[in-house]
Amino acid sequence: MSHDRLADLSRRLPELRLLTAPADLEHYGRDWTRRWTPAPLAIALPVSVEEVQAIVRWANEQAVAIVPSGGRTGLSGGAVAANGELVLSLERMQRVLGFDAVDRTLTVQAGMILQHVHDAARQHGLIYPVDFAARGSCSIGGNIATNAGGIRVIRYGNTREWIAGLKVVAGNGELLELNRGLVKNSSGYDFRQLLVGSEGTLGIVVEATLKLTDPPPPSQVMLLALPDMDALMQVFALFRARLELQAFEFFTDHALRHVLAHGAQRAIDGDHPYYVVTEFDAADERQQEAALAVFEQALEQGWVSDGVIAQSEAQAAALWRLREGITESLAPRRPYKNDIAVRVGAVPAFLHEMQALLARKYPRAEVIWFGHIGDGNLHINVLRPDDLAEAAFIEQCEHVTHLLADTLQRHGGSISAEHGIGLVKRAYLDSTRDAAEIALMRGVRKVFDPRGILNPGKLFADD
Amino acid sequence: MSHDRLADLSRRLPELRLLTAPADLEHYGRDWTRRWTPAPLAIALPVSVEEVQAIVRWANEQAVAIVPSGGRTGLSGGAVAANGELVLSLERMQRVLGFDAVDRTLTVQAGMILQHVHDAARQHGLIYPVDFAARGSCSIGGNIATNAGGIRVIRYGNTREWIAGLKVVAGNGELLELNRGLVKNSSGYDFRQLLVGSEGTLGIVVEATLKLTDPPPPSQVMLLALPDMDALMQVFALFRARLELQAFEFFTDHALRHVLAHGAQRAIDGDHPYYVVTEFDAADERQQEAALAVFEQALEQGWVSDGVIAQSEAQAAALWRLREGITESLAPRRPYKNDIAVRVGAVPAFLHEMQALLARKYPRAEVIWFGHIGDGNLHINVLRPDDLAEAAFIEQCEHVTHLLADTLQRHGGSISAEHGIGLVKRAYLDSTRDAAEIALMRGVRKVFDPRGILNPGKLFADD
Repeated sequence: MSHDRLADLSRRLPELRLLTAPADLEHYGRDWTRRWTPAPLAIALPVSVEEVQAIVRWANEQAVAIVPSGGRTGLSGGAVAANGELVLSLERMQRVLGFDAVDRTLTVQAGMILQHVHDAARQHGLIYPVDFAARGSCSIGGNIATNAGGIRVIRYGNTREWIAGLKVVAGNGELLELNRGLVKNSSGYDFRQLLVGSEGTLGIVVEATLKLTDPPPPSQVMLLALPDMDALMQVFALFRARLELQAFEFFTDHALRHVLAHGAQRAIDGDHPYYVVTEFDAADERQQEAALAVFEQALEQGWVSDGVIAQSEAQAAALWRLREGITESLAPRRPYKNDIAVRVGAVPAFLHEMQALLARKYPRAEVIWFGHIGDGNLHINVLRPDDLAEAAFIEQCEHVTHLLADTLQRHGGSISAEHGIGLVKRAYLDSTRDAAEIALMRGVRKVFDPRGILNPGKLFADD
Repeated sequence: MSHDRLADLSRRLPELRLLTAPADLEHYGRDWTRRWTPAPLAIALPVSVEEVQAIVRWANEQAVAIVPSGGRTGLSGGAVAANGELVLSLERMQRVLGFDAVDRTLTVQAGMILQHVHDAARQHGLIYPVDFAARGSCSIGGNIATNAGGIRVIRYGNTREWIAGLKVVAGNGELLELNRGLVKNSSGYDFRQLLVGSEGTLGIVVEATLKLTDPPPPSQVMLLALPDMDALMQVFALFRARLELQAFEFFTDHALRHVLAHGAQRAIDGDHPYYVVTEFDAADERQQEAALAVFEQALEQGWVSDGVIAQSEAQAAALWRLREGITESLAPRRPYKNDIAVRVGAVPAFLHEMQALLARKYPRAEVIWFGHIGDGNLHINVLRPDDLAEAAFIEQCEHVTHLLADTLQRHGGSISAEHGIGLVKRAYLDSTRDAAEIALMRGVRKVFDPRGILNPGKLFADD
């Protein structure tokens, strides 16, 4: 039966590359989560919008589910194919389609790797400012599908802010050209914005027109050691008020231990419970002096115990590695992840409550947290104790996530800040969205994808 | 029959203020367009979210159409009630509900006048940067419904960029709390963004959480006279590359004539076909010198014939009045308006074609254009010749708009840059959106407003 369907697809698109070898099914059937066993029907690797559209039409007729697939660096299971779906990989669609110097936009195919987008922008003396550690593997289409955030949100916002236009194959097979690069376009519903963050459940992004901007002025990178949690928000408020921040990231001593064990170099001696890596404009002496003055003020107030300013690009990179290397250093332990957000103003109260909850509920597991404090976004990684079986561990974590979701709901927060809902958090969607809103989400999905062929089971618990 | 319905509404909400006097029906039944005869059923002036919700539920049960109503400064007929609708005016919902210093957000009721939003932000040393000439009358809810743009878009973007959260009563009567002020929230479809620019056809915005930002550095205002149209984009490119622009607005000699006749003061002698008002950062001597150098370079190149830099705040205001006074100076003539946009890079080619079209098709009417060249947004105002009857004039203009829409379509532009589609441009929606996209828009509308009670006939030609 599934063989017949694939044969039909091959007949329609004789040039389409289709993979069915077990190693390919496993490789393309999973993302950076490792909780599900990949079991796709096949992998399709189209090279054009027309092929994508033909595949979606075929899928509608043959009732085959499609999992849109980019770099598969996702952490929410959004690109997992564990139920006989066709994986539609964009990895052969990686071309730059155009650059406009007046509009300052770059148009690319959706499979393009984020690092290559950065490189292409730099060639024109401009930057695409969304950035995070997975830049060498993740695709721009995947970034758009999850409205990816990262380490520069405090300065530049999320992916959403940088999308001037999208070309999308909707679930119903129609090709949509959304906004076409316009700065102003008050002509009805902005489906470009609706598609950003829709996790492949409304349409498949095939091309994107990205806004670019001027490179930031020269910057400095500073590492700070903090004596306690309350100091975090005080240092943030002080630094934000006095410096032009490009990034303000924090992590705990637990996180530091793992990243040091993974080969990073210690930059501050002694034991400190919290650390901050911050980057700020330092174009001239005035700004550099301001940074020193602010650091000294924080030291005098007792909000900071120690600190170091990078004296070279190499040292700046070494300081950044302490923060950016965390996820990779934990990966072999396959941590259970939470990626949560509250309003920035709600961070202190929420942090206290959250920390108490985690200490109480994970008495034996190591809990590592870090994140983008200036965006109200915290990443929590829980490591499985060696003597606890995988299934029991996940069950325990899910129990805690339920309690965390309740806490978030009371603080008006979100169960997914930047990873998306996917499979991993779909049971908790109702902690962030009211029933009335979820009902409308389902309704909108039905409009775009009436047969429910795009990424079924993702975002919503049942389809 | 309609009397029965109103009696039913009064029974349900005895405290609700309802107006039915002919003067009120006329006053609240129209916006700044004057093409339709107001004929609402009544005017409801709720004071709370609960009252708005009760009215929408009543309207669903009684099959009464609702026209959401703010400052009624709209130019597209989006707030016109000409078919027995209930006008739901937000003008008694104008309170500030909260300010958060850490999040830097201001939460207000949707009926608040834009000028009062500006004032409230200033009280906290911050600004809400969306701004335009109607600031003293328009409401923030109306700004959101049309994704209003204005004179600072080049620096700050449209209204869309400044919305951290929305409280909305959907067409189905449900209350939605969208995004709740979060910086990061990848938990499904961003309906906040869908509501912005939806012209009251999906839900009624009742509260908004607005992002605020630091005031810009001290600025200077410059008026430039230009010898021809080609110089426009050259001067823009030069100024954008070398200065930190806050605004870059252009207008023609025709526009100048009207605004001078309306009481503004001439600032540059002689006859020049085009003028630009630009405002840019001038925080220190370096920036002020850069502005002079750029001006001199433009003069040497022959792109600028003359210019003046404001030497005081009063003179800056006088220069701004030359641009901001245009709409008001034309209002007594009830011009036919187009508000169109193309990509910035497409402006030169489009301008040439458009100018030829207007010259050919309006041989006798005076055509005045001006706009936001840095956003690709042009406003065209056509004045009725004294010897042409109103109906014949509009017929002629609609004919030209059809041709203009074709031109726009070829250049990938939009038939509405910032005014919205409303009644005025609904016949031209398909020049900007493909049939497939319009079909999805109708589908989404049906999800939010299954009975079609919210602003029927607006945006879409038939409901």
